[in-house]
Amino acid sequence: MKAVVLLSGGLDSTTAAAMARREKWELYGLTVKYGQVHSAELAAARRVASALGFVKHVEMDVNLAAFGGSSLVGTSEIPKDRALDDASIPSTYVPARNTVFLSLALGWAEVVGAERIVIGVNALDYSGYPDCRPEYIAAFEYLASLATKAGVEGRPLRVYAPLLQLSKAGIIRLGIELGVDYALTHSCYDPRPDGGPCGHCDSCRLRARGFEEAGVPDPLTA
Amino acid sequence: MKAVVLLSGGLDSTTAAAMARREKWELYGLTVKYGQVHSAELAAARRVASALGFVKHVEMDVNLAAFGGSSLVGTSEIPKDRALDDASIPSTYVPARNTVFLSLALGWAEVVGAERIVIGVNALDYSGYPDCRPEYIAAFEYLASLATKAGVEGRPLRVYAPLLQLSKAGIIRLGIELGVDYALTHSCYDPRPDGGPCGHCDSCRLRARGFEEAGVPDPLTA
Repeated sequence: MKAVVLLSGGLDSTTAAAMARREKWELYGLTVKYGQVHSAELAAARRVASALGFVKHVEMDVNLAAFGGSSLVGTSEIPKDRALDDASIPSTYVPARNTVFLSLALGWAEVVGAERIVIGVNALDYSGYPDCRPEYIAAFEYLASLATKAGVEGRPLRVYAPLLQLSKAGIIRLGIELGVDYALTHSCYDPRPDGGPCGHCDSCRLRARGFEEAGVPDPLTA
Repeated sequence: MKAVVLLSGGLDSTTAAAMARREKWELYGLTVKYGQVHSAELAAARRVASALGFVKHVEMDVNLAAFGGSSLVGTSEIPKDRALDDASIPSTYVPARNTVFLSLALGWAEVVGAERIVIGVNALDYSGYPDCRPEYIAAFEYLASLATKAGVEGRPLRVYAPLLQLSKAGIIRLGIELGVDYALTHSCYDPRPDGGPCGHCDSCRLRARGFEEAGVPDPLTA
């Protein structure tokens, strides 16, 4: 079976990809370059695609910065040292990002005949992001069943989101069992000039807390 | 009220935009450049956006050709003189195209606070395209209600698809009542070197039949 993997090069998408690989699926990686201010994420995606033996890896530019609206696409400051239990939607939220990513993956899945889209969303990542919830994923699968030739012909596509119900620590423990090398990955929203993690953005802090709770050192900061 | 208009520069999206303008909405036009082999469509979109007084017009590159799979993105020959009542899905079908377009429009709608996305899909255009059906549009609205900050906060976005149930002739009659200048538009999948319509692709033939049934001359070929 073939699967299109949405791969950012972060901890979550890398672990989701490792789980898909354990299923022996042929992996087609899609990295969407949506206007990030840095390229460290892209370099990490390439390392992971190579390490996990992807059949193909496509990097696609989609300039979401043309719409504005998120600090992740360079229109405002990345928030630092924000309370991790803050339930409001943070400025790093990119409008409709997962919908755009899943739609592109759907197009490629249809072309190559893939029956799965792999995405590393999880409940913790939610922290205010509406498009990281189980009911959202289910709604996308329903849309996909109506949207495509494959769906119309009775070959519905499934979204494989194996991290949906896991904590960050749970994801890391799982990844380590699967042999994931987290030194390959990148999580920071606002890396230092040398490419290293800032340590203060939401993503760095969720990652640090995850490794701490998992009781293992993060190879990126150890 | 604000509306994001998916504008290809063709007959349908132009008529849908004219209907949105009659509603006195502020129009934000989005033209997705998804790997068409020609730029005549883009030039038409610019003319229409200007003629209809759009507040803003964004042209966004999304290289769907990286996935292959459609004669519209340059991977095979455009079919000519195909039977118009052929119910099979034609090679001009671009996988997940409308899903990608609607997702991008959703992102922009969220940023500018638009409550409508305008799309010129219609039942006749369907001719085998799964993502041009009423149940598909309804599924996208449901997804949008779960996908976005606006949806979560109780400001659901609606997809305005006013041509859904109209024939091509009905669309043309309606557009003429609204004062649409169809000389500005472009429909051909495979234009001649001078930019003129080929007259033989599905799109040219559906357009010609529409004008004929509407009993008016097409300014592009008259």
